[in-house]
Amino acid sequence: MIACCRSLRHSFLFASFIACGRLFFASERGLQEILSSEASSIQDLLGILPRKRQGSNMTLALMPIPWQVSFTKDDPFLLDTDFYIELPENDNSDERLLRAAKRFLRRLSGRTGLFFESNSPAYGKNETPSFFQWNKKSPVLKIRCGRRGDETKLKEDESYSIEIATAQIMLEAETDLGILHGLETLLQLLSVDPFRQSYSWPTGSIHDKPRFPWRGLLIDASRHFMPVDVIQRNIDAMAAVKLNVLHWHLTDDQGFRIESKEFPKLHELGSAGHYYKQNEITYIVAYAADRGIRVIPEFDLPGHATSWLVGYPELGSAPGPYELSPYWGISEHVMDPTKDALYSFLETFLHEMTTLFPDPFVHMGGDEVKINEWNESATIQQYMLDHNISNAHELQAYFNNRVASILEKEGKIMIGWDEILHPNMPKNIVIQSWRGHDSMIQAGQQGYRSILSNGYYIDLCLSAETHYQNDPLPLDVNLTREEQELVLGGEATMWSEFVSPETIDSRIWPRTAAIAERLWSPQNVSDTHDMYRRLDIVSYQLEEHGLTYIKNYEMMLRRLVQGSDISALKNLVDVLEPVPGYERGQQLGYTTFSPLTRVVDAARPDAPVARRFRFLVEEFLQSSPTDRADTNRSAYVEIVECLSLWRDNHGKLSTSIERFPILQEVQQLSVDLADVAVIGLKAVERLRSMNKRIHFSNAERRSLNRARKAHGQTFLAVAYDIRLLTLEKIP
Amino acid sequence: MIACCRSLRHSFLFASFIACGRLFFASERGLQEILSSEASSIQDLLGILPRKRQGSNMTLALMPIPWQVSFTKDDPFLLDTDFYIELPENDNSDERLLRAAKRFLRRLSGRTGLFFESNSPAYGKNETPSFFQWNKKSPVLKIRCGRRGDETKLKEDESYSIEIATAQIMLEAETDLGILHGLETLLQLLSVDPFRQSYSWPTGSIHDKPRFPWRGLLIDASRHFMPVDVIQRNIDAMAAVKLNVLHWHLTDDQGFRIESKEFPKLHELGSAGHYYKQNEITYIVAYAADRGIRVIPEFDLPGHATSWLVGYPELGSAPGPYELSPYWGISEHVMDPTKDALYSFLETFLHEMTTLFPDPFVHMGGDEVKINEWNESATIQQYMLDHNISNAHELQAYFNNRVASILEKEGKIMIGWDEILHPNMPKNIVIQSWRGHDSMIQAGQQGYRSILSNGYYIDLCLSAETHYQNDPLPLDVNLTREEQELVLGGEATMWSEFVSPETIDSRIWPRTAAIAERLWSPQNVSDTHDMYRRLDIVSYQLEEHGLTYIKNYEMMLRRLVQGSDISALKNLVDVLEPVPGYERGQQLGYTTFSPLTRVVDAARPDAPVARRFRFLVEEFLQSSPTDRADTNRSAYVEIVECLSLWRDNHGKLSTSIERFPILQEVQQLSVDLADVAVIGLKAVERLRSMNKRIHFSNAERRSLNRARKAHGQTFLAVAYDIRLLTLEKIP
Repeated sequence: MIACCRSLRHSFLFASFIACGRLFFASERGLQEILSSEASSIQDLLGILPRKRQGSNMTLALMPIPWQVSFTKDDPFLLDTDFYIELPENDNSDERLLRAAKRFLRRLSGRTGLFFESNSPAYGKNETPSFFQWNKKSPVLKIRCGRRGDETKLKEDESYSIEIATAQIMLEAETDLGILHGLETLLQLLSVDPFRQSYSWPTGSIHDKPRFPWRGLLIDASRHFMPVDVIQRNIDAMAAVKLNVLHWHLTDDQGFRIESKEFPKLHELGSAGHYYKQNEITYIVAYAADRGIRVIPEFDLPGHATSWLVGYPELGSAPGPYELSPYWGISEHVMDPTKDALYSFLETFLHEMTTLFPDPFVHMGGDEVKINEWNESATIQQYMLDHNISNAHELQAYFNNRVASILEKEGKIMIGWDEILHPNMPKNIVIQSWRGHDSMIQAGQQGYRSILSNGYYIDLCLSAETHYQNDPLPLDVNLTREEQELVLGGEATMWSEFVSPETIDSRIWPRTAAIAERLWSPQNVSDTHDMYRRLDIVSYQLEEHGLTYIKNYEMMLRRLVQGSDISALKNLVDVLEPVPGYERGQQLGYTTFSPLTRVVDAARPDAPVARRFRFLVEEFLQSSPTDRADTNRSAYVEIVECLSLWRDNHGKLSTSIERFPILQEVQQLSVDLADVAVIGLKAVERLRSMNKRIHFSNAERRSLNRARKAHGQTFLAVAYDIRLLTLEKIP
Repeated sequence: MIACCRSLRHSFLFASFIACGRLFFASERGLQEILSSEASSIQDLLGILPRKRQGSNMTLALMPIPWQVSFTKDDPFLLDTDFYIELPENDNSDERLLRAAKRFLRRLSGRTGLFFESNSPAYGKNETPSFFQWNKKSPVLKIRCGRRGDETKLKEDESYSIEIATAQIMLEAETDLGILHGLETLLQLLSVDPFRQSYSWPTGSIHDKPRFPWRGLLIDASRHFMPVDVIQRNIDAMAAVKLNVLHWHLTDDQGFRIESKEFPKLHELGSAGHYYKQNEITYIVAYAADRGIRVIPEFDLPGHATSWLVGYPELGSAPGPYELSPYWGISEHVMDPTKDALYSFLETFLHEMTTLFPDPFVHMGGDEVKINEWNESATIQQYMLDHNISNAHELQAYFNNRVASILEKEGKIMIGWDEILHPNMPKNIVIQSWRGHDSMIQAGQQGYRSILSNGYYIDLCLSAETHYQNDPLPLDVNLTREEQELVLGGEATMWSEFVSPETIDSRIWPRTAAIAERLWSPQNVSDTHDMYRRLDIVSYQLEEHGLTYIKNYEMMLRRLVQGSDISALKNLVDVLEPVPGYERGQQLGYTTFSPLTRVVDAARPDAPVARRFRFLVEEFLQSSPTDRADTNRSAYVEIVECLSLWRDNHGKLSTSIERFPILQEVQQLSVDLADVAVIGLKAVERLRSMNKRIHFSNAERRSLNRARKAHGQTFLAVAYDIRLLTLEKIP
C-alpha cells in the first residue's frame, strides 16, 4: 500500500508550491518584495526547485518553517570531502558549540557517506585541525556567535541567521543556542544536486527566531517507566524540531521514578525497581542542555501521589498502609496538607531535587485532587475550621502556597496544572492549561504566565492536523497585547498509560513536529496540506536519532504473526488507527502489566496510507466531471488501486486471523474493509461515468455504517472517506 | 523479494522433517528407540506437526537444539489468561528466579496479547498472588530448583528438564541457571493450536544440558563505543540462545572505555568522552548475572595499548607523547615491560577493576604485540641483556608472568590470546585461540585450558554455515579425552572497526545463534539446512529484545534515498553481501570518524533472499529432468520470479542511483544483476526444455564473471548461483 500511494507525492508537488508560497507570505519581507526583485514566478522564486530539478523535492522540508527565507538562483554550495567547519576564533572554550559542530559533521557524513578529511571543526583562521592541512578554498561553514546562551534563562535569545553562498555558508547568532537551531535548519535543508552528482545547499538566506519561548514535550515516566535511552533519543528529536523544554513527569500514583537519597523509601518502595538514579538524571540534564533543552521535573502533589505514600504513609490523609496502584485512573489517595511534617519533608526533598535540576522552574502538579479523604478525615476538617479554610479548593490553595514558598527559598519558581490557579497564589508562578484554553485566558487576565497543553494531548491519538490548528493565541484571543506576552508557549503531553518504551516514539512522532512548528513559526504558517507534506520528509530524517516509530511498526506486525508473512496484515493495519480519546482506558481492564503489543499498539494515529487516501479522495471529488471521467488521471488510478487491494485483502488475511488468536479482534475490520472497498469501487465508477442510475442499496449503506465501528480499540480510518465517495452528488 | 521467496518455507517443510530427525539421532535415547515405541513415521513421531496442523510450523524452532526431546500425541497445554507460574515453595529469597519468571510472563503476554490475571508468580501452594485468587485448576507452570546457581563458577550445573502435560508444565533444574535456560526453551516452543484458537505448548519432555561450559560473545567497545543499551539488548539475546559469557573488550589503541578512579587520565584522555562509568559497569554485570551470564573484562596489554599511554606516557616503550589513534590496524606503541612502575600501576589498576567484575577470570589480551619500540629502546635492550631475556617473545612472556601473578594476588585467573602461550606461564591460565585451531591443540597438549575463537570471527561477514560447521572438537581432533576436557568452549568475536551502535546487531545476529548451537548442542546436530530453517524463526523472536538487525535494514535504505521509495534499492541490497574477510579495512582510508551508513553497512552477511535463492537453485538442480520440465513446480516458478524481478530492477533503480551520490558505488552491481538475471532466465529455460542447442556466448560468460566482482565493498551474492545454473550439464 505504501508503494501504491507513494507516487502520490508527485501529484501534490504543484499544490505544495502554492503552499510553500505561504512561507514567503509569512516572512517579514513578504512574497511581493521577493517577486518584484528578481524572480518572475513561484517556480523561479523557489530557485532550488525549477522544473528541471523537480527530483530534488526534499529541499523544501523545513520544519518548523523559519521566520524568513529567501533563495537565489546562484550555483548551490556543493558538499565534498574537503568541507570543513570554522568556529569562532579563539573561542575554543565553548565546548557546547564544539560538540554540536562535531555532531553536525557526523550526521552530515552519515547521510551522504562522505569521508570528510576534517573530522573536527577548526577555530578561526589561524588554527588547523589536527589530522590534515586543508585547502583554503575548500567549502566552509563559518560559525559566528556572540556568547554562550543560558539555556535556563526564559526568553534567552534563540535567533540565528544563515547566508548560503556558492563558496561558503555563514551561520551567525547572538548565542550558541541560535547556532544549535541553525545547524538543525541546515541539516533539514541538505539537498541533492543531480546535475553535479553532489550533495548541496541552495544559496539564499534565512533569518529565524521563535514565536514562543517555551516549546515543550512532557514525557510521563511514571505510568510506564521510560529508560534513559528512550529519553535521550527523544531529546535529540526535540532539538531537531527546535523544541526547548523537556517536562519530565517523574511521579504519579503508579510509580515514583527518581532516586532520593534523603528519602530512599520513595524510589525503593514506590517504583517496583524502575527509577532513574541521580547520576542518570544529571546525565540527561547535561545531555539536554548540550542541545539547548531545559529539563523541568514534575513532582505531582498533593493528588496523584500514591507512590510517595507507599514508603511514607505518614504523609497521607488516610491512615494507610498504601500499595502501588497497578490500575489507571486517579487514586483516592492524597497528601494531608494540614500536617507540618509534610512541609518539612518537602523542604528536604525539594532541596535535594533542586540541586539536580538547574532550571529555575519546578512543576508541582496539582491536578485532579480527589477530596474524599480530606472530607473523611476529622483532623483535616478540624484544621480547616480552625484556620478558616472554607473548602477543599481553598485547602489546596493553602498547600500550593506553602509549596511555592518552599520553592522560592530554593530560588525556584512553581509551575502547576490549571487547578492551582487561585487569587492567593504568588504572581510569579506559571499555570499549565490542560482543561481548556479558558484557564490560560483567565491566568493571563489575572497576570499569571501560562503554558498551553490543552489541544496538545498526543496520547489521545488525534491527528497532527488537530494539534497543528490549535493556536495558543488565535487572532481573536481575548487578551491584551501585554497579557498575550504572559502566554509563554505550549507543551505536547505524552501520558504513558498506553505506551511502552517500544511504542512511545510512535505516539510522540511525527505529530509532535507539527506542534513544534505551531510554537516556533509565525502564526500564519498554518497550511495543513503543506505541513503533512513536510512532515513526511522530516519524519524519515528524525529516524537518524534512533527513533523507532517507523521501524517498530513492521516489527510489531511480525510479532503478531510470529514471523510469518506480514503483507496482508500490513495492508489492513496501514489503514487502522487507534480509537482516539479516552475510550481505551475504559476497556479490557488495563493495568500496568497489560501487554501493549496488540494491533492497536502497532496502529498509528494519522495512519499514513489512510491520510494519503483521504487526499486522493479530496482531489478526486474536487476535480471537474471531465477530469473525473479521465481514467488516466493519477487520483482515479490510485484510488482504484487502493480499493482493489483492500477488496482482495481479507481473503489473504483470513488465514492469519484464524491461526493467530491475537488477531481475532480485528477480523470484523478486515471483513469491513473488503466490503467497503467494493462499495467504494462502485462509487468511483458512478462518479467517473456520471451514471445516475447507479444507486446504493440499504445493505450497502449498512455496511458503510458498520465499517465505522471500532474493533480491538481500532477503527478503519478510510471508511469515512469511502462513504464520502458514495454521498457525492452527480450534477 | 522477501514476499516472493517467503512461500519457499513450505517447500522446505519436508526437508525440515528429515532434518529434524537429527534432533532425535542426537538425543541420548535416539530415534530408533522412539520409533519403536509408539510413533510409526517421522510425521507421527513429531506429533506436534501432523499433516493437518502444518500451519503451526513455528513449533520446531528450538535453537540451540536440546540434548533430548520427545513429544507425545496428547492434547496440548493451552495458554489462557488464568495461566500462572508457581515457584518453589518458601523460596521467595531467590530474587533472580522471581525476576526471571516475571520477565517470562511479560514476554508471553507480549507475544500473545493475553491479559494474565496473575502478573506475579506465586510461591508453592499456600500463597496467592496479590491481585486475584486463581482457580486451582488453572494452567500452571511449576518450577522446581535445588539452589541458586553460582554463575561465576565455571562448569556450574546448567541442566534442566521440562515435562509438558495437558494440564501442567513442570520445569526442574538443579540450579536456577538451568531454570533460566528452560524458560527460554519454553518461549521458543510456544505454539499455536489453530483448532482450539489458542496459544499452546505441545506435550512431551525435554532433557537438556550444554556440551561446553564456556559459550561466549566478545563485544569490542573500544574501536566504536557501544552504549549501555546496546550491551543490554545483546545480553538479553545471548540469554535467549543460552550463551553464558560476555567478553567485554574494553581497551585498545582507539579507546579506553572504562572509568578508573585510581587513574582518571585513562578514561579522561583515552576515550574522547565515550566510556562506561563504574556504576554502569556494575549495572551491566548485575544485569548479565540476572540472566546467568558471566562478564569477563579484557584489558589488552602490552600492545593495543595506545589509549593507556595518552594519559600515562611514562608506561610506554617510546618517549611519547601519544595521541589516540583514529586509524584501524595495530599501533606501534607498546608498554615497557622492563619498568617496575608499570607493574605497580597495574597492581593498583587491576585491584580497582577486579572489584567491579566478580568473575574469577580476567582477560589481559596479549595479541599482536609489535616489537619495534622494544628493539629501538636502548634501556629495554639493556634490561633484556641483564636479565637473560633472549628475544621479544620471551620479554612478553616475562611481562605476562608478572601480570598473571598480580592477578593471582587478587584471586583472579588470567586469560590471553594465543600469543601468550609459553612454557613458563602458570598452568591455570586460559588460552583463547584466534589464529587457528592449532594453538588450541597445543594448549591442550601442554595442559592449558582453552577457548576457541578461530572460526567464530563474526566481524568477517562470513556465512552462519561457516561458523556452524566449525566444531571446537571434531571427531578426529588430536587430543586425548583428558586434554579435550581442557577445551572449555568458544566465543564469537564482534570486533568493532566497521560497526556502529546502529549496525552492530546485524553483524552479531542472527549468525551468533548458530554458534550458540554449536557450543551447546550435541556434536552431531550439524544439518545446515535445518539450522537455517530454525534460524529464520528464532531470528524474529530475538527482535523482542529490541535488537535492531531486522528493523534497521530498511531504515538504512530509507536514509540512502532520503526517504523516497526504497523498493528498487531493496531488491538490489537484498542480494548484496559485504565483502567477507579483512579487505574492507584496506580500502577508502577508514578512520574512527568514517560513516558506517553506506550500502555495505545496510547489506548483511547471509543475505536472506540470496540464501533462499541458493536453496532454490540447489533444489532445482537436484531434481530430475522430468521435474525440471514441470513449470508448475515451486522451485522453477520462484527462480523465474526472482530472476524476472532482478532483470527489470535496474530500470527502476537507476533514477535513484543518478540522484543520490551515495548510491553511485553500487551502480555497476545493479547493472550486473540485471545482466546475469537475463542469463539466468536463459539457463533455467535451457534446463527446463533440455534444449542442448542453447549455448552461452563469450559475452555472457564475461558478464557472469564480471558480476562476481565487488563494488562499494559489497558483492552480488546470487551471481555464483546463477553461474551454477549455466554450468549444469544436460544429460
